[in-house]
Amino acid sequence: MLEQFSAGLKPEAQEMEERLEAARDKLYEGQMKIKEFNVPVLVLFEGWGAAGKGSLIGKIIKNIDPRFFKVAVMSRVPTEEEKRRPFLYRYFAQIPEQGKFTFFDSGWMEEITADILRGDLGTKAYHARLESVRRFERQLTDNGYLVLKFFLDIDQKEQKKRMERLLEDKNASWRVDAFDQWQNKNHKKCKKVYSQYLSDTHVSTAPWYIIDAEDKKWAELQVLEIINSGIEIAMQNRKTAAPLLQNIFPLVKMPALSEVKLEGKELSEEDYRRELRELQDHLRDLHNQIYRKKVPVIITYEGWDAAGKGGNIKRITGALDPRGFEVHPIASPEPHEKARHYLWRFWTRLPKDGHIAIFDRTWYGRVMVERLEGFCSENDWKRAYNEINEFEEELTSWGAVLIKFWVQIDKDTQLQRFTDRQNDPGKQWKITDEDWRNREKWDAYEVAIDEMLRKTSTTFAPWHILESVDKKYARIKALKIVIAELEKALK
Amino acid sequence: MLEQFSAGLKPEAQEMEERLEAARDKLYEGQMKIKEFNVPVLVLFEGWGAAGKGSLIGKIIKNIDPRFFKVAVMSRVPTEEEKRRPFLYRYFAQIPEQGKFTFFDSGWMEEITADILRGDLGTKAYHARLESVRRFERQLTDNGYLVLKFFLDIDQKEQKKRMERLLEDKNASWRVDAFDQWQNKNHKKCKKVYSQYLSDTHVSTAPWYIIDAEDKKWAELQVLEIINSGIEIAMQNRKTAAPLLQNIFPLVKMPALSEVKLEGKELSEEDYRRELRELQDHLRDLHNQIYRKKVPVIITYEGWDAAGKGGNIKRITGALDPRGFEVHPIASPEPHEKARHYLWRFWTRLPKDGHIAIFDRTWYGRVMVERLEGFCSENDWKRAYNEINEFEEELTSWGAVLIKFWVQIDKDTQLQRFTDRQNDPGKQWKITDEDWRNREKWDAYEVAIDEMLRKTSTTFAPWHILESVDKKYARIKALKIVIAELEKALK
Repeated sequence: MLEQFSAGLKPEAQEMEERLEAARDKLYEGQMKIKEFNVPVLVLFEGWGAAGKGSLIGKIIKNIDPRFFKVAVMSRVPTEEEKRRPFLYRYFAQIPEQGKFTFFDSGWMEEITADILRGDLGTKAYHARLESVRRFERQLTDNGYLVLKFFLDIDQKEQKKRMERLLEDKNASWRVDAFDQWQNKNHKKCKKVYSQYLSDTHVSTAPWYIIDAEDKKWAELQVLEIINSGIEIAMQNRKTAAPLLQNIFPLVKMPALSEVKLEGKELSEEDYRRELRELQDHLRDLHNQIYRKKVPVIITYEGWDAAGKGGNIKRITGALDPRGFEVHPIASPEPHEKARHYLWRFWTRLPKDGHIAIFDRTWYGRVMVERLEGFCSENDWKRAYNEINEFEEELTSWGAVLIKFWVQIDKDTQLQRFTDRQNDPGKQWKITDEDWRNREKWDAYEVAIDEMLRKTSTTFAPWHILESVDKKYARIKALKIVIAELEKALK
Repeated sequence: MLEQFSAGLKPEAQEMEERLEAARDKLYEGQMKIKEFNVPVLVLFEGWGAAGKGSLIGKIIKNIDPRFFKVAVMSRVPTEEEKRRPFLYRYFAQIPEQGKFTFFDSGWMEEITADILRGDLGTKAYHARLESVRRFERQLTDNGYLVLKFFLDIDQKEQKKRMERLLEDKNASWRVDAFDQWQNKNHKKCKKVYSQYLSDTHVSTAPWYIIDAEDKKWAELQVLEIINSGIEIAMQNRKTAAPLLQNIFPLVKMPALSEVKLEGKELSEEDYRRELRELQDHLRDLHNQIYRKKVPVIITYEGWDAAGKGGNIKRITGALDPRGFEVHPIASPEPHEKARHYLWRFWTRLPKDGHIAIFDRTWYGRVMVERLEGFCSENDWKRAYNEINEFEEELTSWGAVLIKFWVQIDKDTQLQRFTDRQNDPGKQWKITDEDWRNREKWDAYEVAIDEMLRKTSTTFAPWHILESVDKKYARIKALKIVIAELEKALK
């Protein structure tokens, strides 16, 4: 079933040469279309050791302008630094920009199957990885990526022959490592694991192509023709939006913002000072434990302009060891960020385990400002609820404590704070024309925020509303929630 | 991972009642939208014996107008009649019409898992089934169906308790069969098979919902809320086209129609008579063997108007035992056919094994007349190449001999035949205004046909071109191809 690929039957030598030439020319033209229409292309090469991944990639890229591609060479085992992040982190970090190709010289398949063969990945963990991979690949294709996956297949005998030849050559022997040799001796066992993985991740939008790689020209032709045909399909799909998916995440019921009571949510200066001190001491202690137990923590802030996010964050960080946290203020994406999946700039900012990352504005921009300002299509932001739930589940399954705050004030309070800022020379920098423009769209924002709270408050990553007409109240509430969540995780 | 569903945590009694009432009302409104916007809805219920599938379906349909739904009760084991058709046949036959619901009281999951538990389905066959199921469900959702899949989950103890209660009741004891009892005793083994299947078929466009079915009200609420949320998503997806998929099928290179040489492809009357007699005798004999060996055979004809399809078919059927074949002339779809997936009227016309079905025009109408006349969207016909390849692979994997003919003539020959028909009172019925209108679109058709031949000539179901300026030549060629293919299958 998996041994299908679009290249058909191996042609005779004469036809092979003709088709190779035609396919190379076509890829040369194809890259122009990819560039013109801003399609990002991810090409994954997996396969047996000595099957010729590297040299095949070398042949393919000859047809592409060097400014338009990258080759990502992934180590079979992640570095110590990478191990402290979620499994997909190092792969997500390498996804191509719009209009460009990234060729992966092995990737997530190799890592997963090596872990299984080493006995480091049980059935349950394997299934979780599969789900991550399927979502990763589907999110890419849903967001307009062309994803092509090749497995270069040679048999045990051919592999042995090639490895012996490489080992005899002083300049090439480094290319055969201990794992390759082990793989050759344990061919049957490996084949079983590979077949299972291929079958488990053979999804319709990113199918596997098993490439008969014994004849190198034939392998090149198959890969070229499949890439070309993939580019054609991608061109036809340019205007096609991906269907919305049924929600599969358990949701927590959230109130509409209009139902959130703000009156009476206040603290006296005295109570505030006392509580602040106690809570910060407690948090300081927890931060140490988090660090030692290597729990990753992500705290996110969204809220109305002038709601008091900055001051709230300060009261959290005031309790933290500066070596163990980072605050990420999120502004509009830069060109290189805009050219990738919108979650890319958050994936690449994830904390190491034991560290705390605080996001001042977040990935929820997709369903607020990007929705309201038309920075993405309707289909894009409607799909984003599920994509964000998937992302957050990825984080919590990794073991992260994820705390999401919505800082809430009413419209009058905002007006007062805007006016105060305007009148205070020391605070004028904090208020811009854009703030006033956003304020005019308050009602539209409220609709979007209500939908966001309803659709992304999952049991594993619920929203917390901070009533912030009295900023002191909101700060104390935030500290208490952070402390409670950390304690839960440390238990 | 699979234990996620959108209903969240079980509410208290009071909230349960409120949400139940709201969800019932919402389903009542939802059915109206389904009707108004012509969405077909397939709801599959699977689960443990005595988990309450039947009574739950009974509760759900109370909220739907009886004209808008059907309940398909599938037997665990197909009938002898159904066994002679491909695995998916009896399920495809039951898919809902646009604007209507079909509730399956168990279905393809039960059949597949029962086969595994009985030891009747090896790993390879299981994987083939999985691929069929995934494609089936994906084709439905790609074609605008809402597909909802529920697995009703109860534990071993609860199941035992329920079965004992049913068995004590004379009027209900028939509801517990031997398999249910076996299932209860072999809970662990069954659970393993079910979990594996659920995980293997948990696709993003048709995810599984595992329903906690111990509390019946809670089960009803979960299902209602998930159906309602699914309807909402379906409404948002109404205008969304499904992305085209990368081709995964091995293709045979086909000539463009303009490259097909027609000159010199002719036979003398004498040679024709002699060959016809010999070949028909041979075919007659093969038909007997086909019948005894239970090989299903499907022969399809497409070609220009007046190319000679009818006469060609007659020369095939002339050699066949009338009890063993059927000719299906395919005209425009009727309303009840148009209301379903376009392959439905072909799925339901598949021959039993050992029988021959001849299609005079086929499912390729999707990429010819439907494309050119705008009877389907551009996305629909572009997607159809892959859908048809999947369908034909389903047929050939089932064991069918599938022979596809394109009957080719040139434009002048057609004109001559049209004129002859017009002038011959006995043949005037064969020529209509529509034929003349189609003739005007010859060039557009040729583009479509070339694309069709190129994209659907797979190694397992290649196109055969019958040069039919001399109809005798075409008939003899067709007979020879049919004979060769049957002989190949009988070997």
